[in-house]
Amino acid sequence: MEHFIYGGDYNPDQWLDRPDILKEDVRLMKNAHMNEATLGVFAWAVEEPREGEYHLDWLEEIIDRLYENGISTILATPSGARPRWLAEKYPEVLRTLPDGTKAKFGGRHNHCFTSPVYRQKVYEIDRKLAEKFAGNPAVIGWHISNEFGGECYCPLCQEAFRQWLKKKYGTIEALNRAWWSTFWSHTYADFSEVEAPSPIGESATMGLDLDWKRFITDQTADFMKVEKKALKDGGAAQPMTINMMYDYDGLDYGRMAKDLDIISWDSYPEWGGPEGNEKPALGHGRCHDYMRSLKDQPFLLMESCPSSTNWQEVSRLKAPGLLTCASLHAIGHGADSVQYFQIRQSRGSSEKFHGALIDQTGRDDTRVYKEAAEVGRMLERISRAKGAVTRARAALVQDTQNRWAIADTQGPRNCGMGYLEFIQELYRALKKQGIDVDVIDQDHGYEPYDLIVLPMLYSVRNENDRRLKAFVENGGVLVGTYFTGVVDETDLCFEGDTPHGLTDVFGIRRLEIDGLYDGQKNTLTGNGKTYSCDRLCERIAPEGAETLLTYGEDFYAGESALTVHAFGKGKAYYLAAHADEALLSDLMRRAIFDAGIGPLVQDLPSGVEVQSRLKGDSTYLFFENFGTEEGKISLSKNESVLYGEQDGSIPPCHVLVVERKN
Amino acid sequence: MEHFIYGGDYNPDQWLDRPDILKEDVRLMKNAHMNEATLGVFAWAVEEPREGEYHLDWLEEIIDRLYENGISTILATPSGARPRWLAEKYPEVLRTLPDGTKAKFGGRHNHCFTSPVYRQKVYEIDRKLAEKFAGNPAVIGWHISNEFGGECYCPLCQEAFRQWLKKKYGTIEALNRAWWSTFWSHTYADFSEVEAPSPIGESATMGLDLDWKRFITDQTADFMKVEKKALKDGGAAQPMTINMMYDYDGLDYGRMAKDLDIISWDSYPEWGGPEGNEKPALGHGRCHDYMRSLKDQPFLLMESCPSSTNWQEVSRLKAPGLLTCASLHAIGHGADSVQYFQIRQSRGSSEKFHGALIDQTGRDDTRVYKEAAEVGRMLERISRAKGAVTRARAALVQDTQNRWAIADTQGPRNCGMGYLEFIQELYRALKKQGIDVDVIDQDHGYEPYDLIVLPMLYSVRNENDRRLKAFVENGGVLVGTYFTGVVDETDLCFEGDTPHGLTDVFGIRRLEIDGLYDGQKNTLTGNGKTYSCDRLCERIAPEGAETLLTYGEDFYAGESALTVHAFGKGKAYYLAAHADEALLSDLMRRAIFDAGIGPLVQDLPSGVEVQSRLKGDSTYLFFENFGTEEGKISLSKNESVLYGEQDGSIPPCHVLVVERKN
Amino acid sequence: MEHFIYGGDYNPDQWLDRPDILKEDVRLMKNAHMNEATLGVFAWAVEEPREGEYHLDWLEEIIDRLYENGISTILATPSGARPRWLAEKYPEVLRTLPDGTKAKFGGRHNHCFTSPVYRQKVYEIDRKLAEKFAGNPAVIGWHISNEFGGECYCPLCQEAFRQWLKKKYGTIEALNRAWWSTFWSHTYADFSEVEAPSPIGESATMGLDLDWKRFITDQTADFMKVEKKALKDGGAAQPMTINMMYDYDGLDYGRMAKDLDIISWDSYPEWGGPEGNEKPALGHGRCHDYMRSLKDQPFLLMESCPSSTNWQEVSRLKAPGLLTCASLHAIGHGADSVQYFQIRQSRGSSEKFHGALIDQTGRDDTRVYKEAAEVGRMLERISRAKGAVTRARAALVQDTQNRWAIADTQGPRNCGMGYLEFIQELYRALKKQGIDVDVIDQDHGYEPYDLIVLPMLYSVRNENDRRLKAFVENGGVLVGTYFTGVVDETDLCFEGDTPHGLTDVFGIRRLEIDGLYDGQKNTLTGNGKTYSCDRLCERIAPEGAETLLTYGEDFYAGESALTVHAFGKGKAYYLAAHADEALLSDLMRRAIFDAGIGPLVQDLPSGVEVQSRLKGDSTYLFFENFGTEEGKISLSKNESVLYGEQDGSIPPCHVLVVERKN
Repeated sequence: MEHFIYGGDYNPDQWLDRPDILKEDVRLMKNAHMNEATLGVFAWAVEEPREGEYHLDWLEEIIDRLYENGISTILATPSGARPRWLAEKYPEVLRTLPDGTKAKFGGRHNHCFTSPVYRQKVYEIDRKLAEKFAGNPAVIGWHISNEFGGECYCPLCQEAFRQWLKKKYGTIEALNRAWWSTFWSHTYADFSEVEAPSPIGESATMGLDLDWKRFITDQTADFMKVEKKALKDGGAAQPMTINMMYDYDGLDYGRMAKDLDIISWDSYPEWGGPEGNEKPALGHGRCHDYMRSLKDQPFLLMESCPSSTNWQEVSRLKAPGLLTCASLHAIGHGADSVQYFQIRQSRGSSEKFHGALIDQTGRDDTRVYKEAAEVGRMLERISRAKGAVTRARAALVQDTQNRWAIADTQGPRNCGMGYLEFIQELYRALKKQGIDVDVIDQDHGYEPYDLIVLPMLYSVRNENDRRLKAFVENGGVLVGTYFTGVVDETDLCFEGDTPHGLTDVFGIRRLEIDGLYDGQKNTLTGNGKTYSCDRLCERIAPEGAETLLTYGEDFYAGESALTVHAFGKGKAYYLAAHADEALLSDLMRRAIFDAGIGPLVQDLPSGVEVQSRLKGDSTYLFFENFGTEEGKISLSKNESVLYGEQDGSIPPCHVLVVERKN
Repeated sequence: MEHFIYGGDYNPDQWLDRPDILKEDVRLMKNAHMNEATLGVFAWAVEEPREGEYHLDWLEEIIDRLYENGISTILATPSGARPRWLAEKYPEVLRTLPDGTKAKFGGRHNHCFTSPVYRQKVYEIDRKLAEKFAGNPAVIGWHISNEFGGECYCPLCQEAFRQWLKKKYGTIEALNRAWWSTFWSHTYADFSEVEAPSPIGESATMGLDLDWKRFITDQTADFMKVEKKALKDGGAAQPMTINMMYDYDGLDYGRMAKDLDIISWDSYPEWGGPEGNEKPALGHGRCHDYMRSLKDQPFLLMESCPSSTNWQEVSRLKAPGLLTCASLHAIGHGADSVQYFQIRQSRGSSEKFHGALIDQTGRDDTRVYKEAAEVGRMLERISRAKGAVTRARAALVQDTQNRWAIADTQGPRNCGMGYLEFIQELYRALKKQGIDVDVIDQDHGYEPYDLIVLPMLYSVRNENDRRLKAFVENGGVLVGTYFTGVVDETDLCFEGDTPHGLTDVFGIRRLEIDGLYDGQKNTLTGNGKTYSCDRLCERIAPEGAETLLTYGEDFYAGESALTVHAFGKGKAYYLAAHADEALLSDLMRRAIFDAGIGPLVQDLPSGVEVQSRLKGDSTYLFFENFGTEEGKISLSKNESVLYGEQDGSIPPCHVLVVERKN
Repeated sequence: MEHFIYGGDYNPDQWLDRPDILKEDVRLMKNAHMNEATLGVFAWAVEEPREGEYHLDWLEEIIDRLYENGISTILATPSGARPRWLAEKYPEVLRTLPDGTKAKFGGRHNHCFTSPVYRQKVYEIDRKLAEKFAGNPAVIGWHISNEFGGECYCPLCQEAFRQWLKKKYGTIEALNRAWWSTFWSHTYADFSEVEAPSPIGESATMGLDLDWKRFITDQTADFMKVEKKALKDGGAAQPMTINMMYDYDGLDYGRMAKDLDIISWDSYPEWGGPEGNEKPALGHGRCHDYMRSLKDQPFLLMESCPSSTNWQEVSRLKAPGLLTCASLHAIGHGADSVQYFQIRQSRGSSEKFHGALIDQTGRDDTRVYKEAAEVGRMLERISRAKGAVTRARAALVQDTQNRWAIADTQGPRNCGMGYLEFIQELYRALKKQGIDVDVIDQDHGYEPYDLIVLPMLYSVRNENDRRLKAFVENGGVLVGTYFTGVVDETDLCFEGDTPHGLTDVFGIRRLEIDGLYDGQKNTLTGNGKTYSCDRLCERIAPEGAETLLTYGEDFYAGESALTVHAFGKGKAYYLAAHADEALLSDLMRRAIFDAGIGPLVQDLPSGVEVQSRLKGDSTYLFFENFGTEEGKISLSKNESVLYGEQDGSIPPCHVLVVERKN
């Protein structure tokens, strides 16, 4: 499609007895400048009401009618919500809980990914869909299942896990070593003795916990590949995606991305809270960057909400303009679509109050409908930016498996290590400098970057110490922090000095880690400045590094807390404590300067976020004002406004799109 | 009985080996001016120690001895606590938990209401009791079971639920439509597929949840009818009641009331807390009014505590006078009794510290005993008011099924909708005007009233829109609020404009609902005044209504927030946001004035509550001072003091009873 | 051993593939002045990798090599963590949860103490160990299992419980009476009907709850005796111990102590929190005193942490000197050892961050290693105090069974009775006077003491009323408090006046108990002073006692709140409310004075704790400064400094040991 995709989840299967509504929906979507609908996400019970009895003509009719009105379809496989008859006839498709209880039918995600029966039934319906729709020009993509997630502990999954471990470790001795199972005499004599972690069984063997999570990701990916195969066997050649979720830690998306044609995700910021809109914008901005960096290419905003989100703590209305800001925010970060959940509100069940283009009144004069139509107009106006790419020179490392390891380990701060929060604080400090940022995991290459920010890389895998060393040697700027280089992939402590493999790069070694209680603080001083820190304070010994800041209090007052070390052609900072916003801001500014990265614009106004995308000889600059004051961008001769005020001013809750000719 | 009933739960079955105590109890009850004892509530294990072996002579002996001393009996059926042998021999009588686990014997309420065996065994013991005691002149009433409540999820209950649904819906298609089950592909092919809600199964289908709760009420009522039949088959002709609980939402008492001769309930206010006594008094005052309004007739205060209540968070002592205040408070609201749990404290188990007339010291010189005796004297003094009725002209709608629906739905404020709290705030505002108030559900008629206050009637059933319209057309004053008229009985959103069926009555339509986070506020301004609001703010469009207040902040500043609309011979207010105490007070004052309702007395002192009851040509006025300052009532010539200070003064923790000749 | 034991848990079984490390460990332990290692605590899987296949030679080799280097062994039986094969082959050894669920293998403590198979398998391995090592001169003691705790609800345990009850009560009628089971009709017809308490069954029968807890203690002790028998059958004659835990309430240690040769326990104070170090020091000081008083003889500090404790909320580093203070603190309170968990940190699993002598770097120049070596030097310096005894003249009663009863009962303050907190407050008030204190349960004799402080002795057993009366009659000073003498051993309220059996001793009787909400307070006034109180305020009537303080507020203002009564040759104080620190301090000072107990030193500096031990004609005085200011002790001529500053000064986090010649 040459335009940005604009549409969303549409569930006509709930309204098949209402042809008046089905017809009216097309008119309303069209008037809102939509060009896409995502169909069939929860339609299995209508598509196959009884086993082997397929009803797909209604779907074809709707797809065709939409297409006649300029609306293409992304077609979903229905495996995200299976029909009741499947559970009644084949109870094995239901999940088993960690304590061994078999779940009943219900909820949304509740299917065993291992069950051969479930895989077979999903294969059959998926293939039927592909056979019927693969050649339909209306269908531009496949949406596999829905928000993959969750775990099953049934005997089939347990056995698959054992096979997975056998493949990974080869011998039981290797597994025992990796998991340090001699502790508490938990040694395994044979792979057959392994069981998944359970609150009423093994619950404190970190290696087991981590491998189980890896297995869950691999098994889910394996299930996804069955679905892909069914579609391809049915003739499908369109791009395939799954819709991912915000900061979800049940799966390592990095491992799933390689099997997808395009990344898509569902973004639901908590707008309008007591702390304002900048905070949720920066959180979802980071997640947009994470999603884009998964494949280093544009992604789809598969779901977002045109009004309030009913399953959040509070359903705040979006203030006027905020829908436009949020939509452009995704585009700026690399999205090639704006899609909603949902086009028309349900009348009943658990998401009937989830915002939609068309609410239960059916009106087209609502505030929401009118703003959604304006978003459609905006996307048309800036459509030449579609497909443009992002070329960030700074990367922030956010690693899912490391997140698992930090969350699971015991000590040094069981009341909260704050891994994601710290990443978010660093992200904010970077974005406030007006630059683009990639958010990558530790399997990603470091070559494209001039600056790597590496918070709390506790669990190191994939030769990262070696690769980071090479990065700095070759001239890169590295910012490492406390709690880096402590354990390997299965949470086994490294022997000898730490940060493991990086003591020479940073020019320091770690002595001790002090956990601080909530409310306890220390200070960091140097060069006439004083900052604050809390949570975790490492005692470190410089071995070559220059000390920039020292602790101000406690028995380690005067000892190094922030160091810098020239190594090869580059340099490496080491921040030994969880520091306040002021220090993170100063440190990121300094590191960006060292890395030679310039801002996208001069004097970015407070509250305004900027992103850039490149295509041909144009740089597209996207600005959204999530603050409370009007901002203004100075435009150069080679810059022109594509959308927004021509003088570059951006009132609160407004946007600006600028094209710069390079 | 011509006097007010004064007595309470008495458990001589715990002391059968202590004739000295059984004898002393009679003396102490008599000296406390008591005329009633409630017997047999937990006595099944003594009445039928082994299956089919009935021991009732001890009970007859006690009933007769009490009667000889002027003390009548309300006799309980023992089904509220079944003996252990029943569970051992017939495990089906034990409840099954929502996740399918079978409960063990224990606790108090733990019996399946569906089990045919349990029903049969209960029938047999009940009938035996009736056969022996129906003709005994000492027995003045029957207390069926004890505090009915709880749920069972066993196969018998599941099947009964399916039959119940079949009867309600006729076809599975109708059920699917009502529950909007196509969402998430949860369509039912047959009634046999339905299972009760479960945390490990279906947990987010609102229609299912609501119907399950309705079924529980109906099944409990059905069980109760088995008990009634047993008593009647045994010859019983005395009035029958069940003891209800404060704001209990496990049952819809409105549906059970029609099968009872008289309402009774157990009232345990949390006196002496940091916020003082007015708040609990107003809470239980509302509940007294709710209980009275169930049958629009006097009720019994079946249980209350003469001292501190051991199962509450804190067992505060009742300050001197508070027992008298609380007792008269019930009488004023329509009670024809004051009864305690309990006459004599147990020596062991979980309620041994629950306050009683006679504590473990056995003394009659305790502070509690002496005040209880004074309550007895007071009741004798005012006995001519017994049987007097309440004729309130204002009604507040508190609807149990609506409460279920609001608690269950997702959005617009999952952190708390505050339904009951809002009702309580409105009740307070009404009572502070010194009027009587009925508290009714939406099945109650509106004809007797001049003012209907209708907070958050989210789920509308029983043609309430039509009936409310008729009420206003005929001259009534209606105060409706935000979140009214949104869904039908099974939580299905109405199509088109809302408040459904009432847009012309209120002269407005709802545009959007904004949920505010805890701590966020808006203002309401108009006519020189400014109020505060929070939680939920609706945007509404006046269509005929006059705007009284507008929002002061946010993007909908200046839009209508409180409106009034003349409709037919009446008028209708619409309050679009959760407003502060000041506005609720002003609004209720205005609505009462509009409805032409005058206060019971002029200048009601702060902290004093008033209620009235009518009998013949007398109006009885009851005053209780729950505040901290002395108040005084001006007496007219046609008014005389029955109890309290003759000059009408009421010190804190004191009462006044006045008879007014009409 | 003539020196203090210095060593700790050592797990070479985790490093059998690393002879380099095993060798280095010996060098490092020796250099740290250690003379002991605790071996085999978690080694079962290595000692018996397959059923009946014993591998003990590696252990012998290590024991011998350590011994050659001056390091003796305390050898553990491995029953605290059984190998996986035992659970696979004999599932009965796994515990059953209170709801009937069978646990899976995992965690640490998870074995049924009743299972004959488990007892047999434990017997066999224990006996093998004894046979091999009983005669080895290196082995100086046996460490049975590890931190006994937890409960099992399997059919075997249920049946053993029934037999236990049969033995205790003889007839089911006696049990019914003791448990007051007629309440709620829960009468038992036969012992076979009894089941353990369960959240899905009987959960509010206090007598059942208490007897179940007693049974758990007895059954655990019975299991422990099986282990002792195995060791003795194998020839072991060394002292035997189990390692106990801080304020653990799963077992009544008092009942287990009589079967042990020596008490040992694991002490992990939460140092470095926001409230400083005095509070945790006083908490563990009390526990040291409790452990010493169990057998009135020196005990072992079996586990403590040389650095931060990873399973606590926060892993704070120990400030310099704190390890020395904490170690001497244990010695001062009566320990004959300082032992660590652990000598070398694990590389993996849940305690890899638990502090150790040797951390993962393997260095001996760490701050922790160096301070641990200094502790070793200190212990050598003061070794003549080894074996010295404590002769306290004041005792504080802390009773585990009473703690169970208070925690379980309903009312008068379900939001917190504060039993242990109150004991701790009184302990602090006593220790601040600079005296030694025994912490005893109510089975302990009162004869050795001049002062007994008896907080909240709610549940009285073992003729304590009679024994306390004798204590006062014979000249003792007794301080009793609110909530004393309420129920008997099975939580059955006494009939008649209370405090049961002590009304004549205290010269008062209890009228009522008022529970106060959190935040509510009253005052206590008298003699020109005003104190504060909260939580619980009893109304009491003096009957012979002199009133020292009266309540200042509420309806009982002016009534007695603190009384004193001369009785026989002694006197008895009664404190009717939970009073503030100032009053507890004044009251303890007065009671100590009345009892004629003098302080160990004059003018004990703030923040410094003192303890004494006697041996021959020497009194050893131990001082630890847990405060933030330097303190100084004035030394007399007969006093000399064994360790610390010769002038008696004690900077913060420093210690002083003084020998006084008597």
